[in-house]
Amino acid sequence: MLGFPLMSIYLDNAATSFPKPDSVYNAVDLALREIGVGPGRGGYRRGMAATRLVFEAREEVAALFGIADSSRVVFTHSATESLNLALFGLLRPGDHVITTTVEHNSLARPLHLLGRQGVAVTRVEADRHGFVTAAQVAAALRPKTRLVALAHCSNVTGAIQPIGEIAAIARRAGALLLVDAAQSAGMIPIDAPALGIDLLAAPGHKGLLGPQGTGVLYLAEGVELTPLMVGGTGSFSSELDQPAAMPERFESGTLNTPGIAGLKAGVEFVRKIGVGQIRDREQLLVSRLLAGLAEIPAVTVHGPAGDEPRGGVVSITVAGIDPQTVGFRLDNDFDISVRVGLHCAPDAHRTIGTYPGGTIRISPGYFNADHDVDALLAALAQIARSS
Amino acid sequence: MLGFPLMSIYLDNAATSFPKPDSVYNAVDLALREIGVGPGRGGYRRGMAATRLVFEAREEVAALFGIADSSRVVFTHSATESLNLALFGLLRPGDHVITTTVEHNSLARPLHLLGRQGVAVTRVEADRHGFVTAAQVAAALRPKTRLVALAHCSNVTGAIQPIGEIAAIARRAGALLLVDAAQSAGMIPIDAPALGIDLLAAPGHKGLLGPQGTGVLYLAEGVELTPLMVGGTGSFSSELDQPAAMPERFESGTLNTPGIAGLKAGVEFVRKIGVGQIRDREQLLVSRLLAGLAEIPAVTVHGPAGDEPRGGVVSITVAGIDPQTVGFRLDNDFDISVRVGLHCAPDAHRTIGTYPGGTIRISPGYFNADHDVDALLAALAQIARSS
Repeated sequence: MLGFPLMSIYLDNAATSFPKPDSVYNAVDLALREIGVGPGRGGYRRGMAATRLVFEAREEVAALFGIADSSRVVFTHSATESLNLALFGLLRPGDHVITTTVEHNSLARPLHLLGRQGVAVTRVEADRHGFVTAAQVAAALRPKTRLVALAHCSNVTGAIQPIGEIAAIARRAGALLLVDAAQSAGMIPIDAPALGIDLLAAPGHKGLLGPQGTGVLYLAEGVELTPLMVGGTGSFSSELDQPAAMPERFESGTLNTPGIAGLKAGVEFVRKIGVGQIRDREQLLVSRLLAGLAEIPAVTVHGPAGDEPRGGVVSITVAGIDPQTVGFRLDNDFDISVRVGLHCAPDAHRTIGTYPGGTIRISPGYFNADHDVDALLAALAQIARSS
Repeated sequence: MLGFPLMSIYLDNAATSFPKPDSVYNAVDLALREIGVGPGRGGYRRGMAATRLVFEAREEVAALFGIADSSRVVFTHSATESLNLALFGLLRPGDHVITTTVEHNSLARPLHLLGRQGVAVTRVEADRHGFVTAAQVAAALRPKTRLVALAHCSNVTGAIQPIGEIAAIARRAGALLLVDAAQSAGMIPIDAPALGIDLLAAPGHKGLLGPQGTGVLYLAEGVELTPLMVGGTGSFSSELDQPAAMPERFESGTLNTPGIAGLKAGVEFVRKIGVGQIRDREQLLVSRLLAGLAEIPAVTVHGPAGDEPRGGVVSITVAGIDPQTVGFRLDNDFDISVRVGLHCAPDAHRTIGTYPGGTIRISPGYFNADHDVDALLAALAQIARSS
């Protein structure tokens, strides 16, 4: 035991969901203790059990996102790896890419680097609530636009972008759409083919309820990338060229089998409950939170207003107290974990007017109880009063 | 339970070590259930516990390899990622690199690809036992030689290369030395600075006894690389450029905290026993194996002969029976797991004369008992007789 008391309240699910379903812990443990080895390496039964497990995990992820062919789902180790693979694998000097001013560094930093390497980058400016429109994307299109790349749901404001409309605009222009689903996968229903998503990047350890060290990248049929890494694939061993076969082409090296086992259990849980149900539950928590925050005069809520679409992330500031202090007091005095600062997305703060101080980000998850939100509200009210 | 009976014998530790110390399973489980979150993201205590855990793991790995400054140890997700990061991060068109004909695809494939991108690659030819000499490396040097890159111990033959001598040659020529320690880290003593290793790549899930999904790359002071991936680092969040600080520069995205927790426990176990002790134990098992194999006339042992230095990997063929069949019968009739085929290293087989059929690779680990080796020998004798 590490000394975190049982009443500890965790409201930083946008960083990592916690806790996980018990089935996730058990699946990781079973994979480590009973299977042990990795897939595709040994032809013996233990190795084949690992191969089957990874295949089933891939099928689960595919089913969650409405993907018919699970070989188009690549296992990575994080959404960051998924995004880097997508961007560096696809974009070449001379290409044009459209993104927004409210992206996480996992998308913004690769694009910034690609910009230096001759890729033209247009950053569509989000409004003060964190939204962009399909019309803005349409206005930014150029003949050389190869890709539109943006987050489905902001990790700072919770704003949900109109992905379907943007997909239609991109498709008409012959551009691909890359969606960073870090704050939506497993929390907001996503049928990737139906929405017109060409590349979908997601972490395994947030809404998919798997362990850290897992991620996925979906590539629609026909989307070709160069790999970010090459190496041993356990197949086509005699070729010095990286094999073209999916998904091995993008999965060099020993996979994180225990992590993938946990991810499989997480996605099974999500599918059993249903993403719609999870979304409803999280929205109830967010509504409760927003209603309570409105009662604390010193609190400003940033991001979506009224009935603008939002996910499970709420960013606030407290008048007269810097976010770091609020976060410290929530942790120290009330044992409540939230995240404070820039959340790896400085431009999002520039856009909504909270740069450089950042915000206090509250992100409830499916396993939070109403009284977790109530306890946070009471603590915030006390901190605001005492300042 | 997956139905692997208790008498199941695992002799494929060169793919993944199995089992792990109980402390590894427990550390992964504790990290998932009790810490939950990742390091460097939340400023709250739970996040700081993760930060401390990852720091301690880094210190353990550094101590194992004689590295004074643990910030020079980068956590990756596999040795493959470590090697790709090292090679693509360092080499530029016009550079010359020296490697060998007995490398794993994790090194050979990136170098093959770099060769197409204008890096000159010289492959020093190993002898039939799998060895190269420092004199061969010296003879291959050119004014533009930037790097010498090779495995410490072959995953096919078990041959241990004269790393110290090669390091001295490389250093005198102003070239860097990259060592793939996939088959030596945790199994053969490595003092990286004393040996003159500039870059050391190792998987977490083999001799370091950690879980799959972990790896390390050590960069000696002064070795500069471009990152393979950029993104959120939880630090310097306001900069669009990837931070220069170590180790964050190379650790974008959420780290595999449970995996790293397990790796820490694995390395702690290795350091408690002592790499020298582990090496001695594995050598006893290998000697027992080699002595027994010499008694089976149909068996040919490939790789090192006599007292040539070898690690924990023994490759054999059985006259008149293809390796696949031997592997299948060992698994099916005797419940013994070994690996058969090319082991992701086709050129090594071309070098030792076992291409394209490959070999039966037997790789005992620290946790194998003498009677595991005896059972394998009895099974092999029976298979050889019945052919």
